[in-house]
Formats: sequence, C-alpha cells, structure tokens
Amino acid sequence: MPLESGIEPSQEQLEQLAIAVNQRDSDFILSEIGDLHPADITQLLYDFGSQECKYVISLLPYPVGAEIITNLDSETRRKFLRVYDSAEFVQFIPAMDSDDAVDILTETPIRFREEVIARMEDKEMASYIVELLRYDEDCAGGLMAKELIKANANWTVVRTIEEIRRQAENVEKFYSVYVVDDHDILLGRVSLKKIILSKSSTLIKDIYEKEIVFIESYRDQNEVAEIMQRYDLESVPVVNFQGMLLGRITIDDVVDVITEQAEEEINLMSGISETVEEDEPVWTAARARLPWLLIGMCGGLLGAKLAGLFEWQIRMVPAMAFFIPLITATGGNVGIQASTVMVQGLSNRLPGGMSFLQKLMKTILVALVNASILCAAVLLFTWLLGDPIRLAATVSVAIFSVVILASIMGTVTPYVLDKIGINPALASGPFITTANDLLGLAVYFWVAWAMLH
Amino acid sequence: MPLESGIEPSQEQLEQLAIAVNQRDSDFILSEIGDLHPADITQLLYDFGSQECKYVISLLPYPVGAEIITNLDSETRRKFLRVYDSAEFVQFIPAMDSDDAVDILTETPIRFREEVIARMEDKEMASYIVELLRYDEDCAGGLMAKELIKANANWTVVRTIEEIRRQAENVEKFYSVYVVDDHDILLGRVSLKKIILSKSSTLIKDIYEKEIVFIESYRDQNEVAEIMQRYDLESVPVVNFQGMLLGRITIDDVVDVITEQAEEEINLMSGISETVEEDEPVWTAARARLPWLLIGMCGGLLGAKLAGLFEWQIRMVPAMAFFIPLITATGGNVGIQASTVMVQGLSNRLPGGMSFLQKLMKTILVALVNASILCAAVLLFTWLLGDPIRLAATVSVAIFSVVILASIMGTVTPYVLDKIGINPALASGPFITTANDLLGLAVYFWVAWAMLH
Repeated sequence: MPLESGIEPSQEQLEQLAIAVNQRDSDFILSEIGDLHPADITQLLYDFGSQECKYVISLLPYPVGAEIITNLDSETRRKFLRVYDSAEFVQFIPAMDSDDAVDILTETPIRFREEVIARMEDKEMASYIVELLRYDEDCAGGLMAKELIKANANWTVVRTIEEIRRQAENVEKFYSVYVVDDHDILLGRVSLKKIILSKSSTLIKDIYEKEIVFIESYRDQNEVAEIMQRYDLESVPVVNFQGMLLGRITIDDVVDVITEQAEEEINLMSGISETVEEDEPVWTAARARLPWLLIGMCGGLLGAKLAGLFEWQIRMVPAMAFFIPLITATGGNVGIQASTVMVQGLSNRLPGGMSFLQKLMKTILVALVNASILCAAVLLFTWLLGDPIRLAATVSVAIFSVVILASIMGTVTPYVLDKIGINPALASGPFITTANDLLGLAVYFWVAWAMLH
Repeated sequence: MPLESGIEPSQEQLEQLAIAVNQRDSDFILSEIGDLHPADITQLLYDFGSQECKYVISLLPYPVGAEIITNLDSETRRKFLRVYDSAEFVQFIPAMDSDDAVDILTETPIRFREEVIARMEDKEMASYIVELLRYDEDCAGGLMAKELIKANANWTVVRTIEEIRRQAENVEKFYSVYVVDDHDILLGRVSLKKIILSKSSTLIKDIYEKEIVFIESYRDQNEVAEIMQRYDLESVPVVNFQGMLLGRITIDDVVDVITEQAEEEINLMSGISETVEEDEPVWTAARARLPWLLIGMCGGLLGAKLAGLFEWQIRMVPAMAFFIPLITATGGNVGIQASTVMVQGLSNRLPGGMSFLQKLMKTILVALVNASILCAAVLLFTWLLGDPIRLAATVSVAIFSVVILASIMGTVTPYVLDKIGINPALASGPFITTANDLLGLAVYFWVAWAMLH
C-alpha cells in the first residue's frame, strides 16, 4: 500500500522505503511516494543521507524537487546541497519563487551562487535574483518575491486577462492584480473577483481599489509582520522610495517571521544567546549557553561576598541560612512574572492603554496582595514547622519586601531596556533573576539586622 | 490636515479629534477619519469611552463599523457592546464574516445573542451562525467561516463564473473555488487563475485539482495551524465525518492561533496561570500569579527543612551559607536552558531527528563542557577572593555536579510531561526552578559532607 499524504507512515513502510532507496529500486520508490505532497516527502527524507536524498529527488519532477528543497530546514539544506554542483542545482530554480531561490542561494558558498546565476537560462529570473540578493535578509526587500501580476491602469479587462495569461506562468498563487501607471508607480490593486465579474471592455482604472496598504523595501521584517497582522492582509506590495512597485510579500513568509520572533523571545528568557539547531555541534550548543551561566556565576559570587558581610548573623542564628533559597527563589519568580506581563504589554502596545506609571501602580497593588498572602503563609508554616517566632517573623517580613521590590524591578527593567533600544524580553530571563537574587539577599540580611539585633 | 492610514497621528490631531467627538461635530470627524483604514480607526477609538465610540461608529458606513468592531480586542469589545441593544447590533452582522460574527456573539450574554439571531433578515447567514455556535472555540469547526465559493464538478466554466457572481456577494476574499459532487462531498478545488485561463465550455471536472489538503471539523486548532504551516496553505476547507464541505479556514485566523500559542508558552515558562489582559482587575492578576508563587514557597520551605538537616555544617563553616544562592541559581539557569531546548525540539519534531536518548547524551556532553568551565572559574574566583581552599573546592565540585544533574532534569522533565500529555513548556518554568533549588541544596550539602568531614 503506497504512503498517503497527512497520514503518519508505519515503521514497516519506512523500512521498506529505506531498503528500496538502498537498492536504488526506482519503481518501488515512485509507487510509494509519487503521489505524496512534497511537504510529506520532505519529512520522509530527513531519515536519509544526502546522497540518498539526491537520488530520490532525481526520480521526481523538477517542480516537486524544488519544493522539497525549499521545505528543508536551512541547517539540513546547507549540508544537503553540498552533494549538488551548480549545473545540477540550477535545474530547480525555474520552479522556485524568487524569494525562496534567494533564501537558498544565500546559504551557499559565493562561488556556487555566482555559477548558478550565470547558468540560468531565464535571464529575467536571474536579474530578479541578483536584485533580491542585495537586500538585507531582515527587511521587507529580503522577504519579498518578484513574481507578481501587474496591470496598467489604462488597460481594459480583456487586455488584462491576456496579460495574466502571459504573466501567470511564473506566478503560482495570486489573488489580486497590482495596478501601476506608465512609470511602474503603484496605484492600487484589483481583485481577480472584480476582473471576473466585470465586462471585457471595462477599463482597469474604473474598477481598481485606490486605498491599499503597501510597504517600503527598507522596513524591518517585524514591521512587515505587524502591518500585515494589523490590516489582515494575505499579501502586501513592496515599493521603493519613489513608490515604484518592486515585489510582494505573502502571509506565509510572515508566519515564519512571527514564529522566529516567538522563539527568539523564549531563548532570551531562558538565557540562550544563539538560535539552537538540534544537530549543531556540542561546542556551539555549550557556547550559546555559557555567557548567561557566567553572568549568573558572577552574580552568585557577588552574592556570596554580600552575605559574607553579615557572617555574624549566620554565626548567631545558623538557621537563617536555611531560608536563603526561599527568599531568592521567591524574588526570582515574582520578577519573572512581572517582567513577562510588562514585555507582553510592550509588544501589544495599544494606544490609549495604560501609561507606564499606571502599569507600575497596578503592579504594586498586585504585589501587595500576593506579598500579604505569601507573608502570612510563610509565617504560619514556619511557626507550624517549629522555627523560633523571631526567625519566622524575619523571614516573613523579608518575603513581603522582596515580593514588592522584585515586582517593581520586573516592571521597570523591561521598560528601561525598551527605551534604550534593547529587546525587553532579555529582562524576563537572566537579568531579572541575577539582580533579584542580590536584591533578595540584601533585603533579607537588612531585615534580619533590623529585627534580630 | 486629515489623518492618514499607517501614519501615527500627532498629539494635536488626537486632541482636536477628542474635542470634535465631545462636541458631536460629525463633519469634522468624518473629514478627519473618513478615509482611514478601519484598522487605524480602531486604534484611535481605544482613546474614547464606549458612548463616544458608538457615536463615531454611527457616522460611518455599516461595513466599516463592522470591521472596527471585529478588530477590537475581545476584552474591550465585551465592555463596548454593552452600549448596544440587539436591534442596533444586528445591523453590522451582514457585513461580517460568519466566523467573526460568531466569535463576537459568543462574548455576549445569551439573551442578547438569541435576540440578534432572531432579528437577522438573512436567514442563511443566521443558520450559518447557529451552526458555528455549536463548535468548540478551539477546534477547526470553531475557526472556520461558512462563506466560500463552491462549484459542482459537472458545471462548465461559464456556469461557474455565473455562480461566482451570485455567491461572491457574501464572500470578501477568495482565491479558489471548492469543487463538490451532487451530495456536497468535497472533491477538490480549482483556482481562479485556472478559471480565468480556461475556455467557457470547459467542464470543471476536467480542470480541478484532486490532491488537496482538507481538515476535519473536530481537529484541534493547533493541528490546523501545524497543517497550514506544513503545506503552506492560505486557506483550507473543513469537512465533516462524511467528507461533506462545511466551511473554510483562512491563514489570518491561524496567525492568531500561532500568536496565542507562543503567549501561552511564555506564560507557562514564567509561572502565570491565566492569560493576562492589561486591564483586568488587580485581584484577577494576583490570582493568576499566586499558584506558582505558593508552589515556589513550599519548595523553599522544604529546602529550609532539608538545609536544617545539615545545620552542623553551617555551624562549622558559616561561609558555606554564602554560596547557597550561587548553587541554586546555577542549577536553575542550567535547568531552564536545557528544558527550553528540549521543549523547542518537541514542538518542531522532525522525523529522523535525534532520539530521546541521543538528545540526552548530547545534553550531558554540553553540560560536561560548561560544568568544567564553570567549575574552574568558581575555583579560581573563590581562591582569588580569599576563601579557604577546602571551601572553594567544595563549592566548585558542587557546581560541577549541579550543572550535570540540572541538565539531565531539564531534559527529562519536558519529555516525561509530553509523554503523559501535559504541555512540556510547563517544565521550563516553575517546575524546573523549584526542583533544581532542592536538588542543588542536596548536592551542595552532600558534597560538603563528603569533603569537609
């Protein structure tokens, strides 16, 4: 039974496929995977080595191969493409969108890239790729594809349909036709629906929408994501400084941007300084984690020195030491909660939302509620557990103060980072934890000094 | 100068608008905002109270008002809609997509909802809404809209275009026409491009694509997001158990799902148990943060009891207490890093990726590298800072052991949570930190016991 799209293959099917690939049994392979969606074939190929993948792809039509190569994650693709020479690889280009081709080529060595471009027969596509390679990966120009359908405002519907017929060969999916003037300046767009529903002799200028959202090529990709989400767009035209139509960005590229943003934020929160690929070497993985561990270590050593100043307290009441983890952990937890709420508030900024001072006030109120509850709970438990009442009181008061102070720090830090142009998510991780450990210790020993001496 | 879409309004413009709204100066308001994109008007309205918003919306055409109401965030909308009665609100429904109308109606009181449905003149739309209200919000049925264009496989292109003309009135954006048989069973789809480029007499069954991805109405929204991302779809048809076409889901709805997922993961990581809205009352905000603070407190108290067992060590070497925060913080940091990497690995599961044991082995190798570096650094610094060499050695060995053990815990916990059906992101936050504090303490005192006695 051949494999089916969207259904997980059985272990047995995978094994049969592996045997067939090893024996170069092309008939069996094609009967198994020939009808699969390219995205599903991609998933299967992760099980094979580069030479095996190349063999399987060689059995499939070029457009399917092109889609598989586009679907691979970039780490795997980088390795996989080493088994291709430029003459082999260039065959896949005509079936790719220009933005995907550019993304893939930027991962290859310069020499390979230049050879591929030189070998391309479609000189228009080659010029598209050369143009797109100029843009920074993280800006609108780096996200856009050159393939789009455009019509002059002075054309009739029937002429436009003819042009669509001509242009549409290169454009896989499109929903609207961009309308330009004689100098390629973007004027607006007209939906396919409108074209289908209009008479052949109607002029485009009489039916196109003038109010459209566009984006300049130099804008940051996060801005592109924000605008496409805000206006609910599935594609947006990209223009240059003069308003000339350069390309279009589709929502699927923006979905990738959004996913990346979220991953970056989570990495910042957990103190991982580079994007993590599963198959990176051990040293790279270790290096990505080390900086924050070292910062944490410095914080910890500083904390040890700080505590050293209060050695007499520990000598007097050794049990004080037992509650240090409770104090530092509570400070850390409260700080992370406060900063996470603040970071989310900063990224979903609503005009007319609360001002920073209002947010801070609210944070303090929330902190007062939780500080009181925790303070009471700690007092009760330490008393139940048989600790002396003075120690119990000291710990409770310290907890109360730490919750309030850590909340304030967790609210102020992301705000300050954001103001000075640093990603505020950094504040939800390493930063807050280390700072709050020190703060917690200082408060604890200070409260103890005030209450015990 | 009137306001312009996509350009931040000046403070002065906002003030003039506020004055005009207070004076009910409809001419000025319309000249200012009449040409704005509805999404931009929505942003402006966050500055006004519900009655003012209602007044501004009453000046605009119903479709614009409908889009504004759809764009509002649900918390604000819930409050805002209280100033409408069902007879007023029902005017906006014909300009909404059925999925948006349902999302809004589920936020209103049942009585209001029933009245609105009863008042609707378009009985087909009313039946759509009643049908969609049945679905759980988190499943494919809850995301889909009923509006779509479908054609019978036996129709000709010209008949299909006529039908599009008839059906398209209700459907704002569409890129392809779904093809069904006489019993409404989904057969495939045909793109508008294909329809435009085919002869009028061509039969749909000769030009439609049979291999399309569809989704069953009961599937979870996360599955919908995964499938649409995997196959790069901008819309996906939804079918029932018999394969009958029920509706379609568009990518913009899925973008919201992806954003929500990421927020949920971040909340789990920072120990916030409910979704946080900026303007929720203090008590709700406090309650969302309390559970994890209490768990952390119990962990801390347990840690204090644990440390109490080793009181003699602290009495003997009070300086041991100073390094407790260093030990617990390092354990926490390493644990969060390891679990974040593991959680991301679990959510981007690649077939043929590393097995769990391979991942664990790699984590241990990475931990060995970092543990050695940290161990050496701590030994060096504590020695430089003048601590006795036996204490310095104890702390370093404890750091080494904690890094290894916390890495293993950070890798195993998400894996186990995932296996038993709990969101593994939970392990990157509260869980790991509390557990690692205890682990760190135990290791530290045990190492001290072995080295100091």
